[in-house]
Amino acid sequence: MNLKFNEKGLIPVIVQDVKTKEVLMLAYANEEALKRTIKTGYAHYFSRSRKKLWMKGEESGNVQRVVEIRVDCDGDAILYLVEQKGVACHTGNYSCFFRKLEEV
Amino acid sequence: MNLKFNEKGLIPVIVQDVKTKEVLMLAYANEEALKRTIKTGYAHYFSRSRKKLWMKGEESGNVQRVVEIRVDCDGDAILYLVEQKGVACHTGNYSCFFRKLEEV
Repeated sequence: MNLKFNEKGLIPVIVQDVKTKEVLMLAYANEEALKRTIKTGYAHYFSRSRKKLWMKGEESGNVQRVVEIRVDCDGDAILYLVEQKGVACHTGNYSCFFRKLEEV
Repeated sequence: MNLKFNEKGLIPVIVQDVKTKEVLMLAYANEEALKRTIKTGYAHYFSRSRKKLWMKGEESGNVQRVVEIRVDCDGDAILYLVEQKGVACHTGNYSCFFRKLEEV
């Protein structure tokens, strides 16, 4: 399947809890992160700030077992359906999307 | 709330069906698109290919009424919770994420 990585070699990954269907986070993967995710069954990403591949939970223990991976119609966005161990957000919230936006 | 737009002035927007919780699509908004979404209650985006603001469904009729907007912990991703009229995907599928990814 043709995936479209951006000019930095990355593709955005939406992460959704497979049971509750809550959207947990948005991260980015490069090709290697996707391959490792498929091979290991655990969510891998590419950190844009640290400029390195990482496995979610490698330090916190809050790993994500990836039950299914989907790709969108254009091939430029990915969806991981995961079983989340612990919480997804570094703030301690289960989802990173815990704030409402009322105005811009 | 401080939002972080990327170097092109855009922020990724995850779109989720507020009732079924299905993830429908990933699109991009600029500040104006967010403002119009908040003001009108209907999802607006910035088209990267056409380089213009657009209201989802302005041609197809498949509009998205935005029930709630959330922002993630880092302020660099948005989540629209929507009532989808018709289908979200230009292919005729309800969600753009209708394909499984088995290998890269």
